[in-house]
Amino acid sequence: MAAGLLLVVSGPSGAGKGTVCRELLRRLPGLWYSVSATTRPPRPGERPGVDYYFISEEEFRRLREADALLEWAQVYGDYYGTPRAPVVERLAQGQDVLLEIDVQGARQVKARLPEAVTVFLLPPSYGELARRLAGRGTEDAAQMRRRLELASFEIERAKEYDYLVVNEEIAQATAKIEAIITAEKCRPQRAAPYLLQEGIVDE
Amino acid sequence: MAAGLLLVVSGPSGAGKGTVCRELLRRLPGLWYSVSATTRPPRPGERPGVDYYFISEEEFRRLREADALLEWAQVYGDYYGTPRAPVVERLAQGQDVLLEIDVQGARQVKARLPEAVTVFLLPPSYGELARRLAGRGTEDAAQMRRRLELASFEIERAKEYDYLVVNEEIAQATAKIEAIITAEKCRPQRAAPYLLQEGIVDE
Repeated sequence: MAAGLLLVVSGPSGAGKGTVCRELLRRLPGLWYSVSATTRPPRPGERPGVDYYFISEEEFRRLREADALLEWAQVYGDYYGTPRAPVVERLAQGQDVLLEIDVQGARQVKARLPEAVTVFLLPPSYGELARRLAGRGTEDAAQMRRRLELASFEIERAKEYDYLVVNEEIAQATAKIEAIITAEKCRPQRAAPYLLQEGIVDE
Repeated sequence: MAAGLLLVVSGPSGAGKGTVCRELLRRLPGLWYSVSATTRPPRPGERPGVDYYFISEEEFRRLREADALLEWAQVYGDYYGTPRAPVVERLAQGQDVLLEIDVQGARQVKARLPEAVTVFLLPPSYGELARRLAGRGTEDAAQMRRRLELASFEIERAKEYDYLVVNEEIAQATAKIEAIITAEKCRPQRAAPYLLQEGIVDE
């Protein structure tokens, strides 16, 4: 059986990762969303085990030391990480897996699993990014400036990714990521097991 | 302005290249079909300048010697080639170009223009390939055996391609190639000029 596809969606805060990933999961029910662990407290409406596993710094450190995280990052003082085992198991079972992670994490995943397909979601412009961050209404001026600086730093890393998707409109950006998944499944290294099975290519 | 995408569709005779390419052109009116030159005589219904430029061996040799062909190949004793200038011009104007060529030609194009995106169209199985070739009704047993041997040789080259598409059903195979085009336009080297223009990425 062919391994599942590991899709990494990353991009600066304010690019719309969350919204696009939710839409992608709605369109592709076979795609499995990897729930990250974090040390930051839940925001209103966030459900433990669904949006994040909310854990202590002590627990996070234990996971890191046991090499149980596929990637981890510190963002604004909080820790985030991807539990490795569930991702590896799903992929081995042939299921496609979606990681919605930050730029530091995406780089670690690509280094460890080069077959991962990395997508960088971009805001249409810096102005639009600032408007989106301001629209959240949860930030003071200093926080907002810090987020914009980080976003600017992250956007410079865009070229390290396999694909860039400009999120002008959710449906369109999601359709592009769907096309990327379809295309990547036509890669010889992924199509080959199927061809072997069909007797088209000999082993 | 970003250069157009050069899409090469190749595969063994009987894989359905012609049908899939026609469907692709119907769906994507902006895609420009590169008409090949050939020394073989027209088949019933083939229109000069639309399906092929029908030229003499002497003319073909002149084009080759003037390096006016992007690729050329000899198939069953006949010569086929892609006039270079119209392809290069369209690409420079930002138009996407479709080349429907054989395996020898595809390899030459990829070597000369590594940014070309190569798609190998496969029949669902050898059995189906034989049925399709037989269905043409234009072949005697020896010709048919020769075609199957060539097809088998060509299929072994499938892994040299960027993408493999199994043509089980025309609409599905065409949709996969459309997805490949969409995905390839999200590659950083293609997306970057747009991002520069939008001020998202600095030069």
